Amino acid sequence: MELLLSRIAEVTQGEVKGDMDKIIRDVAPFDTASEDDITCASEAKYLKRLEQTNAGAVIVPKTFEASTKNIIQVDNPRLAFAKVLELFYPSAKPMSGISSKVSIGQPFSQGQEISIAPYVVIGDNVTLGHRVILYPNVVIGDNIVIGDDVKIYPNVTILDRTIIGNRVTIHAGSVIGSDGFGFVPDGEKHYKIPHTGIVQIDDDVEIGAGNTIDRATFGKTWIKKGVKTDNLVHIGHNVTVGENSILVAQVGISGSVTIGKHAVLAGQAGVGGHLTIGDNVIIGPQAGVAQSVPDGEVLSGTLAMPHRIWLRVQKIIPQLPELKKRLTGLEKKLKKIEGSEGENG
Amino acid sequence: MELLLSRIAEVTQGEVKGDMDKIIRDVAPFDTASEDDITCASEAKYLKRLEQTNAGAVIVPKTFEASTKNIIQVDNPRLAFAKVLELFYPSAKPMSGISSKVSIGQPFSQGQEISIAPYVVIGDNVTLGHRVILYPNVVIGDNIVIGDDVKIYPNVTILDRTIIGNRVTIHAGSVIGSDGFGFVPDGEKHYKIPHTGIVQIDDDVEIGAGNTIDRATFGKTWIKKGVKTDNLVHIGHNVTVGENSILVAQVGISGSVTIGKHAVLAGQAGVGGHLTIGDNVIIGPQAGVAQSVPDGEVLSGTLAMPHRIWLRVQKIIPQLPELKKRLTGLEKKLKKIEGSEGENG
Amino acid sequence: MELLLSRIAEVTQGEVKGDMDKIIRDVAPFDTASEDDITCASEAKYLKRLEQTNAGAVIVPKTFEASTKNIIQVDNPRLAFAKVLELFYPSAKPMSGISSKVSIGQPFSQGQEISIAPYVVIGDNVTLGHRVILYPNVVIGDNIVIGDDVKIYPNVTILDRTIIGNRVTIHAGSVIGSDGFGFVPDGEKHYKIPHTGIVQIDDDVEIGAGNTIDRATFGKTWIKKGVKTDNLVHIGHNVTVGENSILVAQVGISGSVTIGKHAVLAGQAGVGGHLTIGDNVIIGPQAGVAQSVPDGEVLSGTLAMPHRIWLRVQKIIPQLPELKKRLTGLEKKLKKIEGSEGENG
Repeated sequence: MELLLSRIAEVTQGEVKGDMDKIIRDVAPFDTASEDDITCASEAKYLKRLEQTNAGAVIVPKTFEASTKNIIQVDNPRLAFAKVLELFYPSAKPMSGISSKVSIGQPFSQGQEISIAPYVVIGDNVTLGHRVILYPNVVIGDNIVIGDDVKIYPNVTILDRTIIGNRVTIHAGSVIGSDGFGFVPDGEKHYKIPHTGIVQIDDDVEIGAGNTIDRATFGKTWIKKGVKTDNLVHIGHNVTVGENSILVAQVGISGSVTIGKHAVLAGQAGVGGHLTIGDNVIIGPQAGVAQSVPDGEVLSGTLAMPHRIWLRVQKIIPQLPELKKRLTGLEKKLKKIEGSEGENG
Repeated sequence: MELLLSRIAEVTQGEVKGDMDKIIRDVAPFDTASEDDITCASEAKYLKRLEQTNAGAVIVPKTFEASTKNIIQVDNPRLAFAKVLELFYPSAKPMSGISSKVSIGQPFSQGQEISIAPYVVIGDNVTLGHRVILYPNVVIGDNIVIGDDVKIYPNVTILDRTIIGNRVTIHAGSVIGSDGFGFVPDGEKHYKIPHTGIVQIDDDVEIGAGNTIDRATFGKTWIKKGVKTDNLVHIGHNVTVGENSILVAQVGISGSVTIGKHAVLAGQAGVGGHLTIGDNVIIGPQAGVAQSVPDGEVLSGTLAMPHRIWLRVQKIIPQLPELKKRLTGLEKKLKKIEGSEGENG
Repeated sequence: MELLLSRIAEVTQGEVKGDMDKIIRDVAPFDTASEDDITCASEAKYLKRLEQTNAGAVIVPKTFEASTKNIIQVDNPRLAFAKVLELFYPSAKPMSGISSKVSIGQPFSQGQEISIAPYVVIGDNVTLGHRVILYPNVVIGDNIVIGDDVKIYPNVTILDRTIIGNRVTIHAGSVIGSDGFGFVPDGEKHYKIPHTGIVQIDDDVEIGAGNTIDRATFGKTWIKKGVKTDNLVHIGHNVTVGENSILVAQVGISGSVTIGKHAVLAGQAGVGGHLTIGDNVIIGPQAGVAQSVPDGEVLSGTLAMPHRIWLRVQKIIPQLPELKKRLTGLEKKLKKIEGSEGENG
C-alpha cells in the first residue's frame, strides 16, 4: 500500500512538518523502521533520539517541533499511530456469504453482508445484525440476538438467550453463557441451582481468547459498553463489569461482584464473591481482593523474592503476630526503664 | 407456567401457611418479586423484613412462623428454592435424535433417546448410555464409555479411553484426557513421557467451562462421585479428587495430588505436586499449598492492600529474618540491663 | 506386545544383568508391577527395596549392581523408562488421509501421509508438511505454514499467518495467534491497536491444552525450539520464550517479555510486561515477577498458612513499615541507655 504523508495527516488529524508528498509504504517500530516506513515517537526516550530512526516519517506530540525528519504533530501520538496501523492493515473482511456447510435453526433473521464460515451451528430463533462474521466452528445456541459488526472467532460457544450488542469482538475458544457455579448443600451432596438468567454484552466490548463468562442465576451477567478482557479471564454469574473497564489475562471475578467504570484489574488478580469494586479502581497483578474497594483506590499484593530468602521469610510470616507482641512488650519494659532512669537521674 | 402453591409445597416437602390455592407463575429474587412470583427467605436479613417483599409466596425455614404472607415452611429453604427453580425452568431437552451432519466410528453402541448435534465427531468403539446429549462440535475420541443422562456442551474434547459415569455434565470448551505434563531431562532437551493412563469421571460430577483434565501416566486421573469444578480449572495427571469436593474457578492441581472428600478449594488456589489434601479441608482463594494438609484444616494466604503501603511493605518482607534477629538481640540486651538494674536496685 | 529383555536393553542403550531372554509384556509402576512387567527404580527409595517389586525386570542406574532381579543398567533410568513406555505404547497413528467432511481453501500444499479429520477447516494458502495430523474440528486460518510430524488436537484454533516448525504438538482447545491485548486511551474509551505481527513456533515445541498465545503487534511472538507449556498457559503479544524453557500450568506471561533458555516457570506464576527473564531462571509457583531476573536466579513467593493465623497475619503485614520504625526506635533508645549505663558504671 502507498499513502501520501498528507493523507496520513488527514486521517490522524495531525499537521505535517516536512514533505507532504512523501510516499509511505508501511508502518514499523522506531528502531527497525526504514525510509519507506512511518513510525511513532510518543515518549521522551524516543523523541530525544529522533534523528536516529531511519523512518521516512514520525508521528510526534503537538508540542514537539524541531526535527530534520518529516513529522506529523498530533494530540495523542499512540492513538494516531493505532489509526495509521489500521489504515495499512485493515481487519480482514472474510468473503461475505453463508457457507453451505452450516446448520441453522428456525426462525433465523439476518442482516446484510453477513459471513458464516463452515461448520458453524446456529440454534433456533437467532437474530444476526449487519456485517456479522462467524468464523469456523462457532456454536450459537437458541434465542440469541447479536447486533451489527460483531466478529466471533473460531471455536467460540455462545449459549442460549445471550444478548450481544454492536461492534463486539469475541476471540477464539471463549464460552459465553455457561451455567453459574451455584450449588446448595443437600446432606453430603451438592444440589445444582438452575441458572435461569442470561449474559448481556453491550456495544464495543472485546472479549479475549479462552474466556468463560457465566450466565446469571436470575437476571443477567452484564458486560457493559467498552469493556475489554484479555485471555483466559473468568467472570462468574451475576457479575456486572462497568463501562470501559479492563480485565487483564487470567483475572477471576467471583459471582455477584459489581465492578465500576474505568477500573483496571491486572493479570491474575482475583475478586471474592458479592464485593463491589468502585469506579477507576486499579487492582495490581495477582492481588486477592477480599473486601469491597471504594472509587479510585489502588490495591496491590504480589510477591516474588530470591528463593533462599523466601525459605526463611515464609517461616517468619506466620510468627508476625507473636513478633508484634514481643516488640510491644519490649517498648513497655524500655519505657519503665526510662522512667526509673529518669528517677535515678 | 402456572402452579398451585400446594403443588409447590409437595415438591419441596414443605408445609403451606396461607392460601394453598394461590397460583404461582414464576420465581424471583426477594427484592424484585411480584404478586405472581414465589421467592425465598433463607437468611435472617430477609426474614426480618419479610413483609416488604411483593412476592405472592415465600419459602422459609421450618422454625419461622408468623407472617401475613403465604409461606412454605421447609427444612432447607435454599435447597427447596433450587427445586422450585428447576420446576419452573426445567433444563432444555434438545430434540432427541442424531443429526445427519456427524461423523461416528465403528463399533458404536447407543442408549435410548440420545441427542447428537451437528458436527459432533465420535471415534471408534464408543458406548453412549441413555439420554446422552452431545451439543454441537463436541469431539469424542476412541474407546470411550459414557453413562446415562450425560450432557456435554459445545466444543468439548473427550480424548481416547476416558470413562464417564452417569448424570455427568461437562461445560463448553473443556478438555478431558489431554496428555499429562511429564518430560525427562535428556541433556538440554526434554524427552516426553508417554501417558498411557486414562481419566475416569464418576457419577454426578459437573465439570465447568474451559477446564483441562490430564490423563494419567499410568492408571487413572480420577474425579470421584459428586465433584463439582468451576471454570478454567486445571487438574494434572494422576490426580484423585475425592467425593463431593469442590474446585472453584481457576484452581490448579499439580500432578499426582490426592484430594479427600468434601474438600473446598477456593478460586485461583494452587496445590503442588504429589501432595495429599485431607477430607473436609478448605483452601482459601489464591492460597499456594506446598505441603500436605491433614483432614479438616483451613488454609489461607491471599494478599491485597493499598498500593502506597504495599510499595513499602514488599521491601520489608524480605528483611523479616533480619528484623526478627534484631528483635531477639534487643530482648537479650534489655534482659541484661534489667538484670543490672535489679543489681543496682 | 512381547519383547525380549535384550531388545529393551538395545533400545535403552543399557546392559542386562540376569536373563537376557526374559519376555516382557507391559510396563508398570514399581509397586504394582507383576512378573510380566518391566519397571523403573531411579531413586534411592526404590533401589533400597528393589527385592520387593514383583516386576520381571527393573531399569536401574549404571552404578547399581547387586540384585537377584533381572536389571538393565542405564545412564539415565527415567529417560530409559520413557523410551520403554514409548515402545509399548506408540502414539496412535490416525488413519492416513483427508476426510471428505472438511473445508480446505486454495492454494493448499500437502506433504505425504497427512491425516485430516472431519470438520477441520483450513483457510487459503496453507502448507502442511509430511505426516501432519489434524484432529477433528481444528481450525487453521489463512497463510499458514506447518512443518513435518506436527500433531494438532481437537478444537484447536490456529489464526492467520502463524508459522509452525517440525515435530510440534498442540493439545486440545488451544488458541494460537489471537490478537494481543493492546489498546490506546481515547478519552474515556479504549482504541484497539491492530496486531499486524504473527506467532512463530519452532521445532520440537509442545503446547498444552487450553493455552492462548497472542500474535505480535509488530514482528512475532516467538516460542523457540524445545519449549514445553502445560495447560491453560497465557502468552502475551511479542513475548519470546527461549529454547527448552518450561511453562507450567496457568502461568501468565505479559506482553513483550523475553524469557531465556532452560528457564522454568512453575504453576500460576506471572510475569509483568516488558521484563527480561534470564537463562536457567527458576520462578516458583504463584510468584509474581515485577522486575527483570538475571541468569540463574531462583525466585519464590507463594503463601499458605492456617486460616486462624492468617486472619491475624494479614492485619499485621500492612503495619510492617511502622513495626520496623518502632524496632529501630527501640534500638536507638537502648543504645542511649547502654551509653548512660556505661557512664553510670
